[in-house]
Amino acid sequence: MIRKLNHVAIAVPDLDQAVGVYRDVLGAEISAPHELPEHGVTAVFVNLNNTSIELMQPLGAASPIRKFLESHTKGGLHHVCYEVEDIFAARDQLIGEGMTIVGDGEPYVGAHDKLVIFLHPKDFLGTLIELEQSS
Amino acid sequence: MIRKLNHVAIAVPDLDQAVGVYRDVLGAEISAPHELPEHGVTAVFVNLNNTSIELMQPLGAASPIRKFLESHTKGGLHHVCYEVEDIFAARDQLIGEGMTIVGDGEPYVGAHDKLVIFLHPKDFLGTLIELEQSS
Repeated sequence: MIRKLNHVAIAVPDLDQAVGVYRDVLGAEISAPHELPEHGVTAVFVNLNNTSIELMQPLGAASPIRKFLESHTKGGLHHVCYEVEDIFAARDQLIGEGMTIVGDGEPYVGAHDKLVIFLHPKDFLGTLIELEQSS
Repeated sequence: MIRKLNHVAIAVPDLDQAVGVYRDVLGAEISAPHELPEHGVTAVFVNLNNTSIELMQPLGAASPIRKFLESHTKGGLHHVCYEVEDIFAARDQLIGEGMTIVGDGEPYVGAHDKLVIFLHPKDFLGTLIELEQSS
C-alpha cells in the first residue's frame, strides 16, 4: 500500500522563524509561502533531494494545528504523508481491517491538489498519518 | 548543509505490534529487527522507495527513548535524520551560530555505522534532529 514518503509536516508557531532555521541555519532550499485557507495553514516546503518537509503555521481561528501548538509551543513533528496508488482502495482496505480514518472517511483534495485521507494516531503507533493519492 | 532525509524515527512500545501495523496493515517492506544495545533500542526499518522509517523499541533500562514513551504511551514521531556531507564542518558551523548540540558535541557512530550528532529541539522548532555523515 505505502510506497513513498511524500513529506514530513512540522507545525510551527512562527513561519518566518522556521524558514530562518531551515534556510539560514540548516542551509536548505525553501519554497515561497502558500496560504491554504481551506486547510487552516500557511505552509512552506523544504525541498530535499528525496522528499520534502512541510513547515506550517496556523491560518485562521479554526486552524487544525492550533491545539497541537498549545502543547508544543516551540513547534513539533505533526504528521507523515505516504503516497498510495489508489486512495479509495486504501481507505476501503483500512476500514475493513478496523482502522480509524479521521473525519467522515471520504478522501478530499489536500495541499498538493491530490486526494488525501488522515489515519487516526490511536491505530498507528501514536502518529498522525496522511495518505495521498500518487500521481 | 542538509540535502537528503535519511529516515524518520518513530518510538514504539511494542515492536512486534509496530511491525504488524506497517507490514500487515500498511503493506510496507520491513527489515529484520536489529538490536542496538549501544543506542538503547531494538529497531526495524520500513523500506520505502525514497527513504526509510525507523521503528524503535527501548532496549535496556537506560534506553534514551523510555522517557519519551512515558508521555507517548502508544508511540510517536521521535526524530528526523538528515544527511550532511561533512559532519564536523556542520557541527562547527552550528555551534558558531549558537545552536545547541545534544551531549558533548562530538560526533559518534550511529545506527548505520556512520558519524552522527543530535541537534537540540529547543533551537529547531521543537523537533529532535539527527545529522548523519552521508556516504
